[in-house]
Amino acid sequence: MKTKIGFIGLGNMGINMAKNLIGAGYHLQVYNRTISKVDKLDQASVTSCKTPAEAADGVAIIVTMLSEDGALKEVVLGEDGILKTLPKNSVHISMSTVLPETSILLAKHHRDTGSSYLAAPVFGRPEAAAAKKLWICVSGDQQSKEIAKPVLESLSQGIFDFGEDAGGANVVKIAGNFMLFASVEIMAEAFTLAEKNGLDRLKVAEFFGSTVFNAPVYQNYGRLIAAGQYDGPVGFKAKLGLKDVSLAFKLSQDSGTPMPGLSVVHGRLLAAIAKGWGERDCAEGIGRGVSEDAGV
Amino acid sequence: MKTKIGFIGLGNMGINMAKNLIGAGYHLQVYNRTISKVDKLDQASVTSCKTPAEAADGVAIIVTMLSEDGALKEVVLGEDGILKTLPKNSVHISMSTVLPETSILLAKHHRDTGSSYLAAPVFGRPEAAAAKKLWICVSGDQQSKEIAKPVLESLSQGIFDFGEDAGGANVVKIAGNFMLFASVEIMAEAFTLAEKNGLDRLKVAEFFGSTVFNAPVYQNYGRLIAAGQYDGPVGFKAKLGLKDVSLAFKLSQDSGTPMPGLSVVHGRLLAAIAKGWGERDCAEGIGRGVSEDAGV
Amino acid sequence: MKTKIGFIGLGNMGINMAKNLIGAGYHLQVYNRTISKVDKLDQASVTSCKTPAEAADGVAIIVTMLSEDGALKEVVLGEDGILKTLPKNSVHISMSTVLPETSILLAKHHRDTGSSYLAAPVFGRPEAAAAKKLWICVSGDQQSKEIAKPVLESLSQGIFDFGEDAGGANVVKIAGNFMLFASVEIMAEAFTLAEKNGLDRLKVAEFFGSTVFNAPVYQNYGRLIAAGQYDGPVGFKAKLGLKDVSLAFKLSQDSGTPMPGLSVVHGRLLAAIAKGWGERDCAEGIGRGVSEDAGV
Amino acid sequence: MKTKIGFIGLGNMGINMAKNLIGAGYHLQVYNRTISKVDKLDQASVTSCKTPAEAADGVAIIVTMLSEDGALKEVVLGEDGILKTLPKNSVHISMSTVLPETSILLAKHHRDTGSSYLAAPVFGRPEAAAAKKLWICVSGDQQSKEIAKPVLESLSQGIFDFGEDAGGANVVKIAGNFMLFASVEIMAEAFTLAEKNGLDRLKVAEFFGSTVFNAPVYQNYGRLIAAGQYDGPVGFKAKLGLKDVSLAFKLSQDSGTPMPGLSVVHGRLLAAIAKGWGERDCAEGIGRGVSEDAGV
Repeated sequence: MKTKIGFIGLGNMGINMAKNLIGAGYHLQVYNRTISKVDKLDQASVTSCKTPAEAADGVAIIVTMLSEDGALKEVVLGEDGILKTLPKNSVHISMSTVLPETSILLAKHHRDTGSSYLAAPVFGRPEAAAAKKLWICVSGDQQSKEIAKPVLESLSQGIFDFGEDAGGANVVKIAGNFMLFASVEIMAEAFTLAEKNGLDRLKVAEFFGSTVFNAPVYQNYGRLIAAGQYDGPVGFKAKLGLKDVSLAFKLSQDSGTPMPGLSVVHGRLLAAIAKGWGERDCAEGIGRGVSEDAGV
Repeated sequence: MKTKIGFIGLGNMGINMAKNLIGAGYHLQVYNRTISKVDKLDQASVTSCKTPAEAADGVAIIVTMLSEDGALKEVVLGEDGILKTLPKNSVHISMSTVLPETSILLAKHHRDTGSSYLAAPVFGRPEAAAAKKLWICVSGDQQSKEIAKPVLESLSQGIFDFGEDAGGANVVKIAGNFMLFASVEIMAEAFTLAEKNGLDRLKVAEFFGSTVFNAPVYQNYGRLIAAGQYDGPVGFKAKLGLKDVSLAFKLSQDSGTPMPGLSVVHGRLLAAIAKGWGERDCAEGIGRGVSEDAGV
Repeated sequence: MKTKIGFIGLGNMGINMAKNLIGAGYHLQVYNRTISKVDKLDQASVTSCKTPAEAADGVAIIVTMLSEDGALKEVVLGEDGILKTLPKNSVHISMSTVLPETSILLAKHHRDTGSSYLAAPVFGRPEAAAAKKLWICVSGDQQSKEIAKPVLESLSQGIFDFGEDAGGANVVKIAGNFMLFASVEIMAEAFTLAEKNGLDRLKVAEFFGSTVFNAPVYQNYGRLIAAGQYDGPVGFKAKLGLKDVSLAFKLSQDSGTPMPGLSVVHGRLLAAIAKGWGERDCAEGIGRGVSEDAGV
Repeated sequence: MKTKIGFIGLGNMGINMAKNLIGAGYHLQVYNRTISKVDKLDQASVTSCKTPAEAADGVAIIVTMLSEDGALKEVVLGEDGILKTLPKNSVHISMSTVLPETSILLAKHHRDTGSSYLAAPVFGRPEAAAAKKLWICVSGDQQSKEIAKPVLESLSQGIFDFGEDAGGANVVKIAGNFMLFASVEIMAEAFTLAEKNGLDRLKVAEFFGSTVFNAPVYQNYGRLIAAGQYDGPVGFKAKLGLKDVSLAFKLSQDSGTPMPGLSVVHGRLLAAIAKGWGERDCAEGIGRGVSEDAGV
């Protein structure tokens, strides 16, 4: 018989992760705000739930993948939140991009009710989620990490441990998303500089992506930004990008870390939203902004 | 009998490149402002020259690797410059990081005197130069590229063609160095954010360098910046970094390309020099600056 | 017989304002967290209270001057908050620098309990408060403005009306403090540029302050910043400056207004705190930061 | 009989200054690249010249008011430049906004040919020039200042002495123009923040201009920026504004003075030009840029 685990959050990322868990042999008790999304999963392997509490009922592991801190807190602490039903000794694998302080708060609530909270945010766009190619950072108590391991392995190509403090992995995730957006800004500036000096953006992107900057971030976003054609599927909405960058800004402010590069990216995404591109991909928000400022 | 080529500029980069050319079987007519540096080369394979003109005398190819536009112009156009002696149909392979307008100007002077100018700036630190692992961008006329090919191949792991316009490769080089310094700034900000939130900088650097940012720039500079120990050899002086970033700024201004990320990096290196770190490595100039602003 | 009014908050600003209210003939029911500060006031004209509720008891007007949103909310809504006792139809003149959303929230609570909330933030350093030279911005219902008028007139040289929406005056105050800090940054940059080009900072400051920039902000802060001697009394702590700039940042983010100038000032004050200058004057935090970055 | 002086440069500023010199009783030997502009002056009081050398011929004083360093150098050092004819012991009052290094260079050339160079850049828009309300900064030798005094007094409401070093006054002028543009940026950001939070920009501008920021810069530009209507006469073209800010940037770079506020303004004007607003007023270039980024 299949092992049952809870799963909450069927967004662009979550839906692909849920499919992989099903593929790995788990039966999912799924809750999603928009319930119709559950139809996209193999019905033989899911039980559709009306509340987070229902999804958490009787499982040893529950995975959450939500869009922001408030949604996660509501799913955990709300009237029909998972803490109402989550069995003792079970583990909540919290994979959303949230503030470390949110993880710290929720970890305490879990401990108080006999369960555990493991921060496990991920790196990778929806395609990577679909291909089990995510990178996962974890932080929390050792035992939870052991319990979560098979689940995380069925979603990723690597797991990195950032200690016992519940919020550690969230800091890394937030820092990483800042690095990601900042890299896109840098490329957009560099390619636009090249373009305005008579060069072919795509050729420049190809050169950097295959030599000194031969990392996935530069290759994937580089091609997108260089082509300047943003009519493909939206993998990462600009408004969610702004949310992530705002988390970085809050961390930076609270910890006393001046980050002028972050300010540039924050302003860029803020302008993208203000110009009405909030539902477009981050790459478009940044790339088009740089180009418009340069009059191209 | 060995093919003779001219070689001018035995700085950190040039010395390693000269050694590789000797290793590839060339005999070098070398000119360097500080003549004693020539002693570091295999004396059987070099002829030490007193002027650039002497180094260019009778060769089909001359390579220059100088620190800035003024030095290059002097070496080419000066009273004892190479144009005084460079034979007709020979090729000047100009590997310094200079403005495209400098290449365009010098290309014209070469054409006027019957020789050719090939812009061929390189990516890679001195270690890469020593290991023949440079990446080379070229721009100029097709025939010069053919002639230069064997020389460039003995120095690099790849050659990329950016067209006929003499300045094209220089634009790519300048854009790339901006991307390089901006990446270092981004890492320094991200690692310091992580540090001030309780994490180990080195662990964070290692994670990014082996996953989403697994490119040489992030790996090599990442380790340096994360460790915050800058007592190793200085591969790329902060004052030369500022020079490069100033070239980017000039290009950006002249071509009407607003680049806020570039402004951050320019300000950072300007402060590094002002604080007295001009002779230290760029990585220190940026990394220490970010840390000091954060009070760590 | 003297009119009784409530007064809460004897910080650098509040103490001077309280003295002026006493001078204008009011008897104050005073509450301050550090009760000993009440001793600095004319004892014949004050009643020292143990809680905010006590200070609000039986008055038609209560003035609050607190350091931040949280403190104000606690004083109003807390267990011993003023809403527990504030009589119907009385007016709370809220003079702290807080977010508009805080005013909107508190205005609702006042309405619900039959009293009124008038946002009335002030411009001016402690010396201006002492000299009744504050500028006051007000927003809220018309009747409250009429009732508050004599009190506000005894503290200021001018009152400006920013409409009925409770938060309007707070927006102006936050925007104004941003302009103030940004002006200090600009001067510090300009004076340091002049200094590094061989000029006398004080002479430059004097020129601008008496010609194109002959406004109090430029004259007062200009002299301070130009002299670079910050051993006088601290009128406006850097950490409070950062708080204000953080409010501006929050407003900017929430309303979708990219403000790169604000980012510069925010980073500057964040660095000032990180470097340990939080208790020093804002002028020092900014001025010293600019000078240190320039190596002087 | 009237005193003859030379006058070169009838741009927006120069034309008004020339009129005031005529009004003060001088006869002008005028040179302007576009000769038809001379028609706008009282023909009884001018002699139209075909070259700078002609305008300088036989005068004790010559005034120049040109748009940039190159034009000034050509007028002084060119084939038909003023140094060809300028009598010994005469004074060149150089009122353009140029780099200090340009003044230093030209001062040397004047000394070599027996005349004197006085840097005398001005603050004020064309209206101020017309109303003799300029502020003038001077630097150079004492005797030249004495000789120039009556001329300068007939143009201005105040003269400020910045020492003997020829370039001193230019540094102040460049620093001042930076402060001016930065103030416009700050206002545009603050007013847009207020607007996006429901306030009337004009009311906010009026408040600041009549209280804490009651200086001409804030009043005049404030009204313009707040109204957001830029259809009036163009007093200061954005492309000339960018030129001035570029001078500041060069000074900042050469003297090792990091100025993040300057970077913001530089980027803003660069974008304004790139967007095609180079011939519009600076105020529009900055104000519209801030508004567009905020989607209003």
